[in-house]
Amino acid sequence: MSENHFLHGFLNPKSVAFYGTNNKGSSLAAIQIMNLIKSNYDGKIYPIHLKLDSVIGFKAYKSIAEIPEIPELVVIVLSAKVVPQIFKECGEKGVKRIIVISGGFRELIGDRENTLTEEINKISHQYGIRFIGPNCLGVFNNWYGARKENLAFNISIWEHIKKDNFSIASQSGTLSSHIWFDPGSLDIGLSKSLSVGNEANIDIVDCLEYFKDDEDTKVIGLYIEELKRGKRFLELVKEITPKKSIVAIYVGGSEAGNRALRSHTGSLAGDAKVYSAVFKETGIIQTDYVQEFLDIAMILSREILPKGNRFGVITNSGGPGAMVANNVENKGLIVPELSESLQTQLIEILPSNASAKNPVDCAFDMNLPYFYITLPEILMKSGEIDAIIQYGVVGFQDVLDDYLKYDKIAKHAEFQHQPSEVMDSLAQKLLLPTMKNSEKFSIPILYVNPMSFTSPWSKRLRKNGALLFQLWDRPVNALAKVCEYVNYKKKYENC
Amino acid sequence: MSENHFLHGFLNPKSVAFYGTNNKGSSLAAIQIMNLIKSNYDGKIYPIHLKLDSVIGFKAYKSIAEIPEIPELVVIVLSAKVVPQIFKECGEKGVKRIIVISGGFRELIGDRENTLTEEINKISHQYGIRFIGPNCLGVFNNWYGARKENLAFNISIWEHIKKDNFSIASQSGTLSSHIWFDPGSLDIGLSKSLSVGNEANIDIVDCLEYFKDDEDTKVIGLYIEELKRGKRFLELVKEITPKKSIVAIYVGGSEAGNRALRSHTGSLAGDAKVYSAVFKETGIIQTDYVQEFLDIAMILSREILPKGNRFGVITNSGGPGAMVANNVENKGLIVPELSESLQTQLIEILPSNASAKNPVDCAFDMNLPYFYITLPEILMKSGEIDAIIQYGVVGFQDVLDDYLKYDKIAKHAEFQHQPSEVMDSLAQKLLLPTMKNSEKFSIPILYVNPMSFTSPWSKRLRKNGALLFQLWDRPVNALAKVCEYVNYKKKYENC
Repeated sequence: MSENHFLHGFLNPKSVAFYGTNNKGSSLAAIQIMNLIKSNYDGKIYPIHLKLDSVIGFKAYKSIAEIPEIPELVVIVLSAKVVPQIFKECGEKGVKRIIVISGGFRELIGDRENTLTEEINKISHQYGIRFIGPNCLGVFNNWYGARKENLAFNISIWEHIKKDNFSIASQSGTLSSHIWFDPGSLDIGLSKSLSVGNEANIDIVDCLEYFKDDEDTKVIGLYIEELKRGKRFLELVKEITPKKSIVAIYVGGSEAGNRALRSHTGSLAGDAKVYSAVFKETGIIQTDYVQEFLDIAMILSREILPKGNRFGVITNSGGPGAMVANNVENKGLIVPELSESLQTQLIEILPSNASAKNPVDCAFDMNLPYFYITLPEILMKSGEIDAIIQYGVVGFQDVLDDYLKYDKIAKHAEFQHQPSEVMDSLAQKLLLPTMKNSEKFSIPILYVNPMSFTSPWSKRLRKNGALLFQLWDRPVNALAKVCEYVNYKKKYENC
Repeated sequence: MSENHFLHGFLNPKSVAFYGTNNKGSSLAAIQIMNLIKSNYDGKIYPIHLKLDSVIGFKAYKSIAEIPEIPELVVIVLSAKVVPQIFKECGEKGVKRIIVISGGFRELIGDRENTLTEEINKISHQYGIRFIGPNCLGVFNNWYGARKENLAFNISIWEHIKKDNFSIASQSGTLSSHIWFDPGSLDIGLSKSLSVGNEANIDIVDCLEYFKDDEDTKVIGLYIEELKRGKRFLELVKEITPKKSIVAIYVGGSEAGNRALRSHTGSLAGDAKVYSAVFKETGIIQTDYVQEFLDIAMILSREILPKGNRFGVITNSGGPGAMVANNVENKGLIVPELSESLQTQLIEILPSNASAKNPVDCAFDMNLPYFYITLPEILMKSGEIDAIIQYGVVGFQDVLDDYLKYDKIAKHAEFQHQPSEVMDSLAQKLLLPTMKNSEKFSIPILYVNPMSFTSPWSKRLRKNGALLFQLWDRPVNALAKVCEYVNYKKKYENC
């Protein structure tokens, strides 16, 4: 059980003390406290400050010794050179868990002598302290405590993220925190997110151990600049990937990339080819792109995996259908020509200028139940395809509503605005049968609507569970990578 | 001059007649008339309908013969089989320009005999008619008539698009029309857009001829499934690319892609490798992705081209800096380590835990003028880099404003909401010097803010001319392709 893992305490502390906070917006520790307020954290908060009496409404203490209990977690956002002394004071107090946000430890080695990491390592051993960082952005646990809505333990992310099964461990704080700045842009939530920074004491492998047994984690995201415990990593991911999927970014291999790493976390990156080979061998999905990282995680989070790599393409426009088909095949996957009997079945219900071959191009057709329900259902039931990409789920009523804003049009038009309830119910009616079929047949379906991701119809589709994209490039690329994982799992299961 | 080209009349008609319209939202011809209303078209609109007396407020005519003048353009949205008869009636009336929206012509060859294309070709020759289509989505001219704001000739696009220098000719209506459904998602506008459909009479080469001499077109976008006049295409693009950039999508080469094409426009696609070789030889930027197509066009539209392929990366976070550097080098471009003298110059003003090597990682620094103005300026003046990608232009005040919504925070915080005018003026102050330098040194700078593209700060940056992206993958990929074009131009100029 993940409750027995030492990281559990970092993600579920009942009390937290902060070094380096004040009441200003420029203080990262103050921001962390404000994020705890935003996420309705119900534990104790102890700001430590030499001069202030209170910080954002919480009584401040001059030193950790004065705090009336031993905080379950201590967070340090002060300059590197004072951190060893703070570690000692924390050790004396009996603190067992520290997160060091501060930078300026290992990352400057090469430019000047820097033994601060060694110093805090020594002190932490002396007092039995485990610590995350230094040079990190903290942790986030969306399943903290009573697991209520809008309750989280959050000293890392600046927005409310919905609860989900995706957990991140990252050697970059941006990848664990800042990519969540706009939760409205992705239909995926988070379980946990840990920024591990320089990994002086706790590393990505520890996080993987924790995620392996965490019931709230089904999909794991990793950002890796360097693996310090390669062998244990290999053992672990081999155990994990047959059950939980892992998507990883590895940065390294290029000259400038390595230069960036040395100044970032001080990592010495390895050969990119070696990492890629390891990822492939262990079923880790690799990507170089942060958007793809999120897209893959979003698809995996639904826990509806395709059984193979045969794509069905449904479209009401030729161009996107052709581009999707082309890009799918360029990735080595298949857009099979449908069987004659299936084509016959489709042709019966398709308009005369449509094509039933795959891409199934139903031309511009206004029969919505047929487009949203019947076509995908026939394909899903056929056994001839493993995943569907559907272009053209356009919010036509949104367009009409816009025309009706023009008096000249409104006066003459024989169509009218549809109330929200009508449109809500329409979206539900059109989507739910397909969502059920998708689950039943284990066939993911990815939709594309060229309108804004936050347009009324797009929102309605997303609310009813549609995996929606605004253009058709990303779903192909992400689904192709998911298929690689599926192939790995198949091979593994046949071994 | 493009005014003398026969396509000019298609884009600037003073009168348009429509076949196939009614007052319903499901009629594409009605939608075209409504788009003309939306775009303040000031020419004559003549709906032709056997039964209706008026269409969306315009007097309807039983036949084209009854219309009191010869319409400069006729648009047909009726089933294919009646189109030859309409062509005859139009010919008799003296009409010289027709757009055939209707599908069902060539695209069904193979399934059944279809001679409709031959029929309309014959009639058009007989009467001296030029026509666009069939199987297209019409045309759009943002520089129509008096060139006033919110005035356009638009029977193709459903939204208001700002006037710009990018023109599209496309064998897919979606690529010419529907990708513009969400103009708020891209900081690029349009000059013209032509959906050429099956190209029975007018083809992409005609459009290229027109764009070549069109003063309002500086960047050309093409979606190609098949080139009917390969030799003329080659001649033309060789003339064009030294002066105007071309970005093109070619779809074909894969089995499923070709299958899609045959049912789409009836094209027989050629070998993808041949097309790629031609594009490379003639300086056409090729992409398989619609998002990249738009991103490349957006960068090119600014008319600030890098002089080489050395990238400067400015970041306040290590991970994105390393990923950008890695991805740039994976594309064969350079993130050069800066010269010692330049590093010395940067180190003097950078915080102690920063890196001046490139990526220039200034860690988490709140000195905005330095981040937005000084750092890019030093890099631009150095002569050591040709383009800049800058990560981390975060809207920090937006975050603080959000905290202030919480009473508990607002009561104690020592920071406050800043009025709109203050933030507007800040954005202007921070951006304009860099925008000027970018132009002066011909060094494009692409910004990344992980917050929503429509967040207040993102909007302010965009308003002041920032080329902004939400994540850092797209700017690298698009700029890399722009660099290929730059290399072509250099080679060409040195010949």
